[in-house]
Amino acid sequence: MGNPHQDTAMLYIIGLGLGDEKDITLRGLEAVRSCSKLFLEAYTSILCVGKEKLEEFYGKEITVADRHLVESEAESIYGSALVEDVALLVVGDPVCATTHTDIMLRALEIGARVEVIHNASIMGAAGCCGLQLYNFGQTVSLPFFEGEWRPGSFHPKVAYNRKGAMHTLCLLDIKVKEPDFVAMAKGRTVFQPPRFMTVNVALRQLLEIEEGLAAAGEGGAYARDTLCVGMARLGQADRTIVAGTMGELLDVDFGAPLHSLVICAEDTHDLELEMLKQFWVGADTKRLEE
Amino acid sequence: MGNPHQDTAMLYIIGLGLGDEKDITLRGLEAVRSCSKLFLEAYTSILCVGKEKLEEFYGKEITVADRHLVESEAESIYGSALVEDVALLVVGDPVCATTHTDIMLRALEIGARVEVIHNASIMGAAGCCGLQLYNFGQTVSLPFFEGEWRPGSFHPKVAYNRKGAMHTLCLLDIKVKEPDFVAMAKGRTVFQPPRFMTVNVALRQLLEIEEGLAAAGEGGAYARDTLCVGMARLGQADRTIVAGTMGELLDVDFGAPLHSLVICAEDTHDLELEMLKQFWVGADTKRLEE
Repeated sequence: MGNPHQDTAMLYIIGLGLGDEKDITLRGLEAVRSCSKLFLEAYTSILCVGKEKLEEFYGKEITVADRHLVESEAESIYGSALVEDVALLVVGDPVCATTHTDIMLRALEIGARVEVIHNASIMGAAGCCGLQLYNFGQTVSLPFFEGEWRPGSFHPKVAYNRKGAMHTLCLLDIKVKEPDFVAMAKGRTVFQPPRFMTVNVALRQLLEIEEGLAAAGEGGAYARDTLCVGMARLGQADRTIVAGTMGELLDVDFGAPLHSLVICAEDTHDLELEMLKQFWVGADTKRLEE
Repeated sequence: MGNPHQDTAMLYIIGLGLGDEKDITLRGLEAVRSCSKLFLEAYTSILCVGKEKLEEFYGKEITVADRHLVESEAESIYGSALVEDVALLVVGDPVCATTHTDIMLRALEIGARVEVIHNASIMGAAGCCGLQLYNFGQTVSLPFFEGEWRPGSFHPKVAYNRKGAMHTLCLLDIKVKEPDFVAMAKGRTVFQPPRFMTVNVALRQLLEIEEGLAAAGEGGAYARDTLCVGMARLGQADRTIVAGTMGELLDVDFGAPLHSLVICAEDTHDLELEMLKQFWVGADTKRLEE
């Protein structure tokens, strides 16, 4: 009652885009400036600048929200949005990940007001390789294989997309702040170094699943000669895009994270192929900067 | 040789996002400030503010690039990018439409440097209704039916998406600066007033095609009881989202343009349905602002 912000307080969920601190929109920056508390979601994607650079740019402190905070203690993020402006900063666009949908719903349940500020996402920027976004089918996530755990649940989805003349965007796994159970068994809280799946690992895993299924007579979704586009650091100055067959891209060095991969449709249109030419394995890719 | 900008001149293709002048990114605004010439692509989408508001905001003049200029005289846009910074401003994200891919390719052909500055697009923002973006299949465009011309080429695409558990984003037709041939036959250059397809017209056209095919035994892609989400003015303060069956949404007033429509997959996940609840026909939709 006594708080002047009670009627206007807001939980902002703000997309930061894909590159650095300058990819926020003016609307997003205005919202940041109105906020008492800033949280940065830092486990489903990353910018090429860290929390410190953003803090300096905003002139405000930021709390890094890791998976534990967002999934198990989310109320500490949205709880105070009943009485003050709070922002959850999200790399890319806020509506691309289930995580942010969930926190939005929970905030609405306690009566908070929520405003989403959109931005570029990998799902939109993937079109910059020249493949048309309206020809993309469902998106798949490729998790790191671990020992015996080698899930191939993406395989029928890629097959269905390709048969229906659709490209498949593959989002590659990110492991940030994963517990080191060996150390933890000894009573210490230790996290493994961050790991980001490369295009090369993604291709090896894709081919392993396809070849295993093919041996059982259930393959045929794609093969070593299937056209793909590997992309790294989209929306950043040193972004890298290389098109070629799965076999050709297996050993291409895409450099620093984040990487993603598109498996092309069985039929790729002429205009798309013409755009892809400039990114062909071995071609000069320097003219198109982004 | 004598021009100091020759080595750094750039064609910027800058996404403006979906709302108003404040949805540009800081990177985009910096680029605008460096440019000698600004063109605004104004026939595949619109912001809720016009050219004059953008000119005032940038402190620069803008040339509106209509379909004729972009498709037939594009060199007047990218031609001078060899010696000075030029920007093509695009509502949403630049890589969402074939038009911008084409101009990019042609600029590269004459040796221009091109930089794309990404932003939010309808294809990303469509996720704000709660349907998960990675469950979307290929996107379809619905053109206005005209007399005998009632194309149903989207129908098998929607059918394929729905059978594969994918949602379908339908982009609704925009007619801007269409020639008035009756007046032009009399020797005057006259354009028809702009027309933007509503969710209601889209649904009527969709049902007409489905019902015609069903009568011939070829229907079954969707029906009056198929779950859909109508969306208007996404990314703007008065955005409207209403979920319901095709039949229920036929008479819902979504207000001013732009409208778009999602036809849900045959199976829609529980978390998606929970998010959709707040947008249900007749529900209070005021709490989630954007």
